[in-house]
Amino acid sequence: MNAVRAIALGALLAVGLTAGAQTDPLPSWNDGAAKKAIVEFVQATTTQGSPKFVPPPERIATFDQDGTLWVEHPMYSQVMYILESVPGLLKAKPELAKVAPFSTVLEILKGDRAAIAKLTMPDLEKLAAATLTGMPVGTFQAEAKKWLAEAKDPRWKKPYTELTYLPMQEVLKYLRANGYKTYIVTGGGQDFVRQYSEKVYGIPPEQVVGTAGSTKYGYAKDGKPFLTKEPKLMLNDNNAGKPEGIHLMIGRRPYAAFGNSTGDKEMLEYTKAGDGARLSMLVLHDDAKREYAYGPAQGLPATKVGAFTQALYDQAKKQGWIVISMKDDWKKIFAFE
Amino acid sequence: MNAVRAIALGALLAVGLTAGAQTDPLPSWNDGAAKKAIVEFVQATTTQGSPKFVPPPERIATFDQDGTLWVEHPMYSQVMYILESVPGLLKAKPELAKVAPFSTVLEILKGDRAAIAKLTMPDLEKLAAATLTGMPVGTFQAEAKKWLAEAKDPRWKKPYTELTYLPMQEVLKYLRANGYKTYIVTGGGQDFVRQYSEKVYGIPPEQVVGTAGSTKYGYAKDGKPFLTKEPKLMLNDNNAGKPEGIHLMIGRRPYAAFGNSTGDKEMLEYTKAGDGARLSMLVLHDDAKREYAYGPAQGLPATKVGAFTQALYDQAKKQGWIVISMKDDWKKIFAFE
Repeated sequence: MNAVRAIALGALLAVGLTAGAQTDPLPSWNDGAAKKAIVEFVQATTTQGSPKFVPPPERIATFDQDGTLWVEHPMYSQVMYILESVPGLLKAKPELAKVAPFSTVLEILKGDRAAIAKLTMPDLEKLAAATLTGMPVGTFQAEAKKWLAEAKDPRWKKPYTELTYLPMQEVLKYLRANGYKTYIVTGGGQDFVRQYSEKVYGIPPEQVVGTAGSTKYGYAKDGKPFLTKEPKLMLNDNNAGKPEGIHLMIGRRPYAAFGNSTGDKEMLEYTKAGDGARLSMLVLHDDAKREYAYGPAQGLPATKVGAFTQALYDQAKKQGWIVISMKDDWKKIFAFE
Repeated sequence: MNAVRAIALGALLAVGLTAGAQTDPLPSWNDGAAKKAIVEFVQATTTQGSPKFVPPPERIATFDQDGTLWVEHPMYSQVMYILESVPGLLKAKPELAKVAPFSTVLEILKGDRAAIAKLTMPDLEKLAAATLTGMPVGTFQAEAKKWLAEAKDPRWKKPYTELTYLPMQEVLKYLRANGYKTYIVTGGGQDFVRQYSEKVYGIPPEQVVGTAGSTKYGYAKDGKPFLTKEPKLMLNDNNAGKPEGIHLMIGRRPYAAFGNSTGDKEMLEYTKAGDGARLSMLVLHDDAKREYAYGPAQGLPATKVGAFTQALYDQAKKQGWIVISMKDDWKKIFAFE
């Protein structure tokens, strides 16, 4: 860069900064307590001289994924990946096709969606072990990427990766523009989410904390080393596992955390318990028309997928966390609308 | 920032960039194969249009700590922390003072350094569990910080944190100036190293991968949540544990990796086995006068602390890793020289 170009850049910067100050960083949010809380938090923690100023290296914000950054109903996308990987698995092991839970999955995929309810937790664990482990890391990554490029959500007929919430994408960008490092802290599989987090959210793999199994280092016949995904759980990144995973993988307490269900409770508590300005927020799915409505908080229908209980709602009110109403706070839900 | 100040900044930037291009990024290195390999690697991977160009988000470099970034002889600093924490522990539990291995540690601290050899691996594990676990994370952090500020290396009479290798500090800065994210990947305790990594190496806590125990989320009497350090190993970040830990915590294969002992072998193999330009380097401690000399590679004295075997040396030569001779490649070892 020569001096003339650098000066031109300087001038552009100045113009950009002025323009930036006049632009709404959260255009998909309606004015209200939620939007106000986010903007005030960012201003308080990033304005030099503010009593709540946070030095840039300490600016950490964590986001649950399913139901917080993208759609989780009627079923978590990764569970759909597990189910839709079964036919490929059965090609290699046809003897399993008549054995439950693999036979149940074939019924589901033939169109009997109600059969999903037959799957127990041990069934899901068996299916997860069979489809997510036992292969080299590189093989899993390629298979997950292929599925993500091809699979579609049945309601919107779009790739799952397009079903992210535009208002939350704006929060991610707004925080990053203000020096925050944004992390995903998900109950979903770390290796799965890392395959699209950078492209979909601008969050690099090293900033994804998720449920993680161990890997095993070994050598191929040609002597090349590789890692194999093992069916051994290292971190169950749900509930208390979220702050424990944050300590393991980040080593600092977040200043802001976003979730939407009881699995996020401990992460929000841990965040809010820190000194200074801390922001804990929960997305409430109360928009049956534009997305889904479930709780059971506030009389919304109960669910097993991403439950937001009344106890969680009451704790939020008591401890100063902010509940985001999808219906009232979000002008737009998806970028494609 | 107004336009005039932005333009002034632009001009300063231009001057800075011009000056930077003429400065040797590795002034403490003698000219030779090692320095050449580092500079060529950086140029090949960061020059637009180079066939070996690496996009900035993928620029990951990993560094072992003990013996690679700072002195590890006669004993790892964290082992000294464990030993020197025993008297404090015995104040709370005086009944342990007459029981081995605690009684052995008291002999060592009274000046009988030879007694260190009496400590077995199970002894060290017992001492580590007693001094590194069972307390709230915040308590451990405060104790480790206090020790690091007060403890001194017996030979140089300086804090351990000043015994970092200036040539390696230059490599860290040079890589970062070229868009690399630098990580520590250490057999040492993750929570311990994170207490000084930012100040000492410019490496933030979230970029420290180390041996890690689990933590347990709980609540104090006033309801405030906190994490307790548990005596349960999650990641033994040595040998195969290094590439496994890199996959867990970073999720990308490094482009450059630096080590100094057999515990780094798998990390260097894994790094070098990637596509494109990959740099694997080993520090050989062959300078008894300015630091220490140990191998047993190349006829150097054998050691149990950071052994560099002849087999590792031969593998390095065969697989194109570069061995750094402390004696020949480093003009200066410490900043305080």
